[in-house]
Amino acid sequence: MSSTRPLIAIDWGTSSLRGARLGASGQVLESREFPRGILTVPPGQFESVFQELFGDWMQAPGALCLISGMAGSRQGWQETPYCPCPAGFAELGQHLLWLQPGRIALVPGLSCLGADALNTPDVMRGEEVQIFGALQMSDRDSATLVLPGTHSKWVQVQGGRVTQFQTFMTGEVFALMSQHSILGKTMDLQGAFDEAIFLQGVDQSQQSGSVLHHLFAVRTLGLFERLSAAQLPSYLSGLLIGEELRHQTASAHPEPVILMGSEALTLRYTLALQHLRIPCQSRGAEATWAGLFALASAC
Amino acid sequence: MSSTRPLIAIDWGTSSLRGARLGASGQVLESREFPRGILTVPPGQFESVFQELFGDWMQAPGALCLISGMAGSRQGWQETPYCPCPAGFAELGQHLLWLQPGRIALVPGLSCLGADALNTPDVMRGEEVQIFGALQMSDRDSATLVLPGTHSKWVQVQGGRVTQFQTFMTGEVFALMSQHSILGKTMDLQGAFDEAIFLQGVDQSQQSGSVLHHLFAVRTLGLFERLSAAQLPSYLSGLLIGEELRHQTASAHPEPVILMGSEALTLRYTLALQHLRIPCQSRGAEATWAGLFALASAC
Repeated sequence: MSSTRPLIAIDWGTSSLRGARLGASGQVLESREFPRGILTVPPGQFESVFQELFGDWMQAPGALCLISGMAGSRQGWQETPYCPCPAGFAELGQHLLWLQPGRIALVPGLSCLGADALNTPDVMRGEEVQIFGALQMSDRDSATLVLPGTHSKWVQVQGGRVTQFQTFMTGEVFALMSQHSILGKTMDLQGAFDEAIFLQGVDQSQQSGSVLHHLFAVRTLGLFERLSAAQLPSYLSGLLIGEELRHQTASAHPEPVILMGSEALTLRYTLALQHLRIPCQSRGAEATWAGLFALASAC
Repeated sequence: MSSTRPLIAIDWGTSSLRGARLGASGQVLESREFPRGILTVPPGQFESVFQELFGDWMQAPGALCLISGMAGSRQGWQETPYCPCPAGFAELGQHLLWLQPGRIALVPGLSCLGADALNTPDVMRGEEVQIFGALQMSDRDSATLVLPGTHSKWVQVQGGRVTQFQTFMTGEVFALMSQHSILGKTMDLQGAFDEAIFLQGVDQSQQSGSVLHHLFAVRTLGLFERLSAAQLPSYLSGLLIGEELRHQTASAHPEPVILMGSEALTLRYTLALQHLRIPCQSRGAEATWAGLFALASAC
């Protein structure tokens, strides 16, 4: 399969659906975005939603469509088994699930087994194409990549293949604590990001003791008026991102860690990593199309 | 003030209101419980609710009423400043807030400053009377007490005074993760408690890495069908209680830790502590009346 076929690249996530029509060198010719994440699509309706939103693009002769993200989950278009690590372009290409042979395929997520005693599994869906896209755009084929978000991913890449990764529920725990816990009651979520307070939280998270204890300080520092309601979200964010970074050391990362995500989040992770003297580089989140283009070229 | 005065002991919490009329030796003569926690009482209405529910008891000649719990919080009857640690009966007695001098008083909560670099404050309201009640009923005046719950407390008592304590948000994080997070979606919360799976979670929490990562295994172990939906809550509970205990060691506890709380929770903590070879003894939660009785006798 060559990259000269018109490629329709789709990122179908939990809450949003994005697509791009790519040119022969991978450039974006046209893109579309819809609030039609998989949670909004009734079972059995995925094909018709796809046809409605992207059917015109698929009429181009020889069009190939690759779809990554939660569309391949049990709640999506069709469950696509995870591709086990180590995995690179070749393994992803072998594990594509063809909805229409040679024409429309779901890209599998990745799974790995942890290095712990029970080999606890871990999974991702959608991030793998960002990772391969970023590698494609860089000159490195071995790196540690960090994709902050609701479920933050720490990914080891060696020789162009993902060998191991770990998920941290940092973003989801932040959302739960600030929206649903007692901590939210004294917190002003509209408060502007406060870098100094954020780094206080990072420092506190590196002290001995459990994050389950450190979290309660978000309440008491407010009660004792040591922090204002507007400062508390920055402190909570520092505590949780600091907890995620707690077991990382500068010596474990002789090469800079590559950060990929939204601007707001990569800023926070950059601040925290620099504070802990772990070198890092920040990339934009937009490697999805490059990853799908490279996959189409390779498979 | 002597214990020969009739004592009305009240525990006015966030979601419930309990009261007991005590005899001259502290025995419970009569008790009442109402779903009238402070969250159900409009500002300014605390006195009339109290009169309505306990006014008859207060007509006894010389009646004294002590009220502990969240009634002394900013959202309660009247804000009662925390009594700073170290604190025993004498300090609590000095810091009572008299709503009617010599007749009705709010018992203050306790505050302490952490041993960390920032001396982060910690607080409790209501647990202090349980702690002093338990000490009153035991032969020890120095101990580590653990009060598991929504906000679990680890309390150091020396010479009959609370010298230091730490709050862990274990119970609240369990509730948030099982009810509001992605983990809840694959979990059967009606599943019976599974001791072996719970201890697997405890073991996992003692491994290297962050609880923010270990939590995600509740999802993947379900996805990979290594655990059933009914087993996942036991695993999550083991992970979180194990995280709370992670920094405790047998050598730090030559004397048994005293556990006070509901039967279901003290069972889980007993299992986890024994698994980690930390000696413990379990007491019932019902030391509140003994604590208020001892406070009335001492003040």
